[in-house]
Amino acid sequence: MRVLAMLDGTLADPDRPHLRVDDLGALRGDGVFETVLVVDGKPRELGPHLDRLARSAAMLDLPAPDRAAWERVTQVVIDAWNQPGEMALKLVYTRGPEYGDGTPTGYALGLPLAAKALQERVAGVAAVTLERGFDPEVVPRAPWLLLGAKTLSYAVNMAALRHAATRGADEVIFVAADETVLEGPTSTVVAVNGATLRTPPPSSGILPGTTQAALFRAAERAGWSTKVEPITRADLANADALFLASSVRKITRVRELDGVPLPDATTRQAELNALYESEYS
Amino acid sequence: MRVLAMLDGTLADPDRPHLRVDDLGALRGDGVFETVLVVDGKPRELGPHLDRLARSAAMLDLPAPDRAAWERVTQVVIDAWNQPGEMALKLVYTRGPEYGDGTPTGYALGLPLAAKALQERVAGVAAVTLERGFDPEVVPRAPWLLLGAKTLSYAVNMAALRHAATRGADEVIFVAADETVLEGPTSTVVAVNGATLRTPPPSSGILPGTTQAALFRAAERAGWSTKVEPITRADLANADALFLASSVRKITRVRELDGVPLPDATTRQAELNALYESEYS
Repeated sequence: MRVLAMLDGTLADPDRPHLRVDDLGALRGDGVFETVLVVDGKPRELGPHLDRLARSAAMLDLPAPDRAAWERVTQVVIDAWNQPGEMALKLVYTRGPEYGDGTPTGYALGLPLAAKALQERVAGVAAVTLERGFDPEVVPRAPWLLLGAKTLSYAVNMAALRHAATRGADEVIFVAADETVLEGPTSTVVAVNGATLRTPPPSSGILPGTTQAALFRAAERAGWSTKVEPITRADLANADALFLASSVRKITRVRELDGVPLPDATTRQAELNALYESEYS
Repeated sequence: MRVLAMLDGTLADPDRPHLRVDDLGALRGDGVFETVLVVDGKPRELGPHLDRLARSAAMLDLPAPDRAAWERVTQVVIDAWNQPGEMALKLVYTRGPEYGDGTPTGYALGLPLAAKALQERVAGVAAVTLERGFDPEVVPRAPWLLLGAKTLSYAVNMAALRHAATRGADEVIFVAADETVLEGPTSTVVAVNGATLRTPPPSSGILPGTTQAALFRAAERAGWSTKVEPITRADLANADALFLASSVRKITRVRELDGVPLPDATTRQAELNALYESEYS
């Protein structure tokens, strides 16, 4: 089952074409998106997702997203989905057709969770570290690089995941030219040492994680210490446990890094996911 | 006037939607493209453009483009255009719908030349140098960065051009972290010193230029010396003249760089364009 609604709230058939070939989302990857987890009809972290959509849009000089319209279309898809359980909801916002009237394109697409994502929630992932090619010091002075914007220009992220697969891995942890840890192609890195959770700062040129933020909120309430600070490649090896946080896969343990098995973190994963879930109970 | 044909050769109305919202070209910028100049019904450098499309597709692990189909659809659009003068022909090839049968999406879109492009051919451009954030030494060891592939993930290129506009400039020359010169967002850099033409090598992580290659072929025949070698930022200032080569704008002079007017290169521009045109006469 898939449910599509255009930003004006109209339901549409996802098997039919709805985008023009000159939509700048398609021609130039010129747009932004979010993926929201919906559980039993309730969208998780919708506010932070819409905040991030607005921040990404601003970085691309797109018209500010109409928040009420995005909240409405989210509900339209949820109402039409009308099933218990989970749905992945993609919110997509592009600059619109190049030969149009300047109106951006917006739509919300409800999808079933991929089998691979469900399996990785349970089994964890094997990850490889891959160079992302930039130095974090370039971030503040080069806003045109769009580092930290969640754009539709994800070809590099997809290529990195395909490269990981050729090395027998499921996932990627990008590292910067200065060896600091960045993020996964579609996830946020969380390292655990003792009762401390750490994640790299958005100032490194990465996305602020919505799922990671929810986890950190819950963890702080439960007495954990949390730090948003640079993490080096060496820190990854020295962590008690490593996780990738993402909307759809929640808090997924890294069970192997660059071909080296990590200590079993199954119990820790259950603990962190219980913390994360406590935000919604 | 715009003319659209899908890769199977069918003409279609460009004002109607033809892409699904889950096309990976739109959702992930996951595809490749070319822009071909067509003059009086004749596509220029079609062979090199299709070679580059195939090379870009290979870098993205897309199915190899069906060359005969691309040649056919090019002719379909040219025949339907059926007007003297110039047309810009976009060839777009994506991974296809995420929830499809695995068939890539392909189409050819014939467009009139933008007024700005025509004006820049005559007046030249003011350009700014902008950091691209990577060091060329990363290129050979990080193929997942897709440096040198002409992908649909062009959000950074578009953002760089918008940034240039805020500084009163029309164009961008990207420079690498080691200060070597890369390329424009949609063009190839050519520096002239005496009777020598120079352009940076594709091994720097840039596209091999089709228009630049045509110019160099013609120039060599006419007794010029040509070099494909690294160019530094300092070399830009020391050049007799700077040009940006692109299919649609041909050989465009840079009349101002980072706010500093360059020596008048109107005559040199006419000379280089005459060389370039001699390839098609």
